[in-house]
Amino acid sequence: MLDRLRAIVGDKGLISDPVEMEPWVTDWRQRRRGAALCVVSPASTAEVAAVVALCASEGQPIFPVGGNTGLCYGAVPESDRPGKPGIVLSLRRMNGIRAIDPAAGIATVDAGVVLGDLHAAAAAVRRQFPLYLGSEGSAQIGGLISTNAGGTGVVRYGPMRDLVAGLEVVLADGRVLSDLAGLRKDNTGYMLRHLFIGAEGTLGIITGAALRLHAQTPNTAHAWVSVADPAAAVALFTALQDRAGSYIQAFELVSASQFELVRRHIARVRIPFAELPAWSVLIELGSEDVTTALNAILEDVLGAFLENGRVSDAVVATSEQQASDFWHVRHSVSEANKEEGIGIVHDVAIRTSDVAAFIAAADKVAAARYPQAVTQVVCHLGDGNVHYILMFQHAFWNGLEDPEAFALEVERAIHDAAATYGGTFSAEHGVGRKLAVELRRLADPLRYELMGQVKNMFDPQGLMNPGVLFATDDAEQIAGSSVLDFEGGAATESRQTRRRASRYQ
Amino acid sequence: MLDRLRAIVGDKGLISDPVEMEPWVTDWRQRRRGAALCVVSPASTAEVAAVVALCASEGQPIFPVGGNTGLCYGAVPESDRPGKPGIVLSLRRMNGIRAIDPAAGIATVDAGVVLGDLHAAAAAVRRQFPLYLGSEGSAQIGGLISTNAGGTGVVRYGPMRDLVAGLEVVLADGRVLSDLAGLRKDNTGYMLRHLFIGAEGTLGIITGAALRLHAQTPNTAHAWVSVADPAAAVALFTALQDRAGSYIQAFELVSASQFELVRRHIARVRIPFAELPAWSVLIELGSEDVTTALNAILEDVLGAFLENGRVSDAVVATSEQQASDFWHVRHSVSEANKEEGIGIVHDVAIRTSDVAAFIAAADKVAAARYPQAVTQVVCHLGDGNVHYILMFQHAFWNGLEDPEAFALEVERAIHDAAATYGGTFSAEHGVGRKLAVELRRLADPLRYELMGQVKNMFDPQGLMNPGVLFATDDAEQIAGSSVLDFEGGAATESRQTRRRASRYQ
Repeated sequence: MLDRLRAIVGDKGLISDPVEMEPWVTDWRQRRRGAALCVVSPASTAEVAAVVALCASEGQPIFPVGGNTGLCYGAVPESDRPGKPGIVLSLRRMNGIRAIDPAAGIATVDAGVVLGDLHAAAAAVRRQFPLYLGSEGSAQIGGLISTNAGGTGVVRYGPMRDLVAGLEVVLADGRVLSDLAGLRKDNTGYMLRHLFIGAEGTLGIITGAALRLHAQTPNTAHAWVSVADPAAAVALFTALQDRAGSYIQAFELVSASQFELVRRHIARVRIPFAELPAWSVLIELGSEDVTTALNAILEDVLGAFLENGRVSDAVVATSEQQASDFWHVRHSVSEANKEEGIGIVHDVAIRTSDVAAFIAAADKVAAARYPQAVTQVVCHLGDGNVHYILMFQHAFWNGLEDPEAFALEVERAIHDAAATYGGTFSAEHGVGRKLAVELRRLADPLRYELMGQVKNMFDPQGLMNPGVLFATDDAEQIAGSSVLDFEGGAATESRQTRRRASRYQ
Repeated sequence: MLDRLRAIVGDKGLISDPVEMEPWVTDWRQRRRGAALCVVSPASTAEVAAVVALCASEGQPIFPVGGNTGLCYGAVPESDRPGKPGIVLSLRRMNGIRAIDPAAGIATVDAGVVLGDLHAAAAAVRRQFPLYLGSEGSAQIGGLISTNAGGTGVVRYGPMRDLVAGLEVVLADGRVLSDLAGLRKDNTGYMLRHLFIGAEGTLGIITGAALRLHAQTPNTAHAWVSVADPAAAVALFTALQDRAGSYIQAFELVSASQFELVRRHIARVRIPFAELPAWSVLIELGSEDVTTALNAILEDVLGAFLENGRVSDAVVATSEQQASDFWHVRHSVSEANKEEGIGIVHDVAIRTSDVAAFIAAADKVAAARYPQAVTQVVCHLGDGNVHYILMFQHAFWNGLEDPEAFALEVERAIHDAAATYGGTFSAEHGVGRKLAVELRRLADPLRYELMGQVKNMFDPQGLMNPGVLFATDDAEQIAGSSVLDFEGGAATESRQTRRRASRYQ
């Protein structure tokens, strides 16, 4: 197998030394470790296709990895079949920007391009690729598409799904499905593209993409606003929508407890308030047009809220430095939390209109069941995306008999609170291996069944990132799914049995 | 069958009188006529589910219809199986706005709601549903989603696909797949929703939707601009993107020949130019913020183009009346063309950057092969969507031996020109019955095969709008598609044969 892979990708494209492989079989936080035969890095779509076809014929699982920045262990290789450890597939050598077309607003790129490099390439033609998240220095386009990445720009530009205008995908049998025309409109049948976006590598390998660029917004305004409570933040968001809806580039709600941890642990952070507000919102407005008076718009809307008392204080940035200081506070959250203790982070989304009620419900659960925790909220309010965090001190955590079971119990309690409001347990982080069992527990059974049928259609051998999205013990259920078996009957039954046998041989 | 249907939907929900059925089996332009057992109009999702389940058990095709405003005969009932004429399924009685949530920006509606009614309901909460097209007085949400409708607002807000936040769908077996949470972010596995958007009723019946509302833009500016040629229009669009990208609400390119027909046939139309420009562009900018100086932005950008000579004249509207006059010219195109003769309208999309080259190529084809035609261009330039029209006089047309064959020949020639630039033959009108054979001819074979597998997965009996998207003689191919047959073998073969037999009994 190694020799045949080397024949396709060359020496440069193959790592099989256990020490060198170590970072490729471990998630970046080093919490979960897998194993694989080798790491394969093809240099072209044709090489990816040949590698996938070889794995298909050999029954070897394929574990695709992008920048390995995920939070749900979706890139940790864990084979579900004895004697077939599978390969890690990295597209790091496919890192070319194939073309940039500013008039059409399309960048065509290899899937291995790092997000930050695409930002730079877009800026060079006076455009932006408006996906903004902390890991832009290592996250790759293929992984960002496979996980439908979010970030702070979603409120204006949508998640990755809204920025993809075309894909090139190597299917599980090695054939290449390519749709890189990058058209804004195309009504010629089923839009298959969206199945691969957010599929976490379980349906095929994304090797290239046509991505939508937007105009740059050099004119910005920033405010950090102290609000009475989450409901006041929602009211402020609604009023700002009325007045300047499409100018809103960020609307981030932060709890005092979270602010406090940033102040405690991050050196040289500039806190815009003398006294920490119980709740506060970081707002960014932006416009392509430099004459639009964004600060005046902010002051207008905030003035009304200062008068009615739902805003108690507001700091509008008067310099780029101050705006950058604002963002520094926001971006320091993860680091501060890491210093403080063990944080169980949730990635819930409900409707914006339900955010206040959800936070109250989650607080009630936390107070009643986990009094040892301090709770923190960091929320992309315009998207209804709440990162609700229960922070435990190390001393408490180290005394737990089974920390994993405890974490799972906490997560379920918060996910259930979100479900009460029709919310989701994964807004932007994805499912991976971490939440596959939660998906099975919480997904609408009909939708879950159809997902299994789609999986089976594209990946009948179950070789594409097995154990991700679908828990490993789902494999049998997927293989036996009722797709095409409308008529039922004995022949069908025996065929399913045969397939199942061949998968677990 | 009629009695069993009546038992589900009642007398009010059933039309079986041939005279009353006439408008339901004919497209609105009365060019194509079908036949059906009856017209069924359920009053609830549960009734739709019961009707679909009954049809599934009886092997009766289902032909869904919205406002019957389509251009591709997608709503004309034409059964492909002897003795099973099928039913027309209308959701006109399901016309309720279930809920409107301005903070989350979500309207939850029945699929039978007429677009204009949704516009009014959104305006009542200071929001807009930004899908704008001529047939808003009759087009229904279900049909607009099933055909992924476009219109003049796509350049800013995207097509219907970008405005759908959730669907409720009755599947071919009568089960209901519902996802009306209306979340902005949800990364919990495959996004099945997008399969139904643009599926033209071939995968299931959309009964409800959660739709995204946007802020209103009371501040607008309009200009009608004479440009040197389509390339100059593209350059102007690019410059306007740089300066005010997200403010662009319409950017419509019109040829002199098209302008001339409007002047000739439409009474009381106000032409903004003394002399008709060879090419001209209607621009609309819009903002939520009333202080943003949109006219100044327009004048800035146009000033630079007047200086460099790529714009020879520009009229900026100075009143709402003048803006409305501008749009009246644009909206009179269809009526003027109908008066003039027989127009073969194409719905091509290429990239905006290729629009000028495509128009030149199409002109060359038209001049060489169809000198009898006057060509006209109406183009949503920001979307790369060119309605390229060949206008023939009645006298010529009536002399044709086989006008349908002639029209098909013309269409193929223009579609081929678009394909040269990686373009599509259907940007916003869809495929329907009209272009099903073109889809088979022009689609990437692998994509077409996968489409067949998706069809077979959701509709194994082939009862959902048969003949639409897939030409009727494709049915056998779809039924025999290789999904799940990864291992091959005799049992698989016999199973396919069995299914095929059961479909054509």
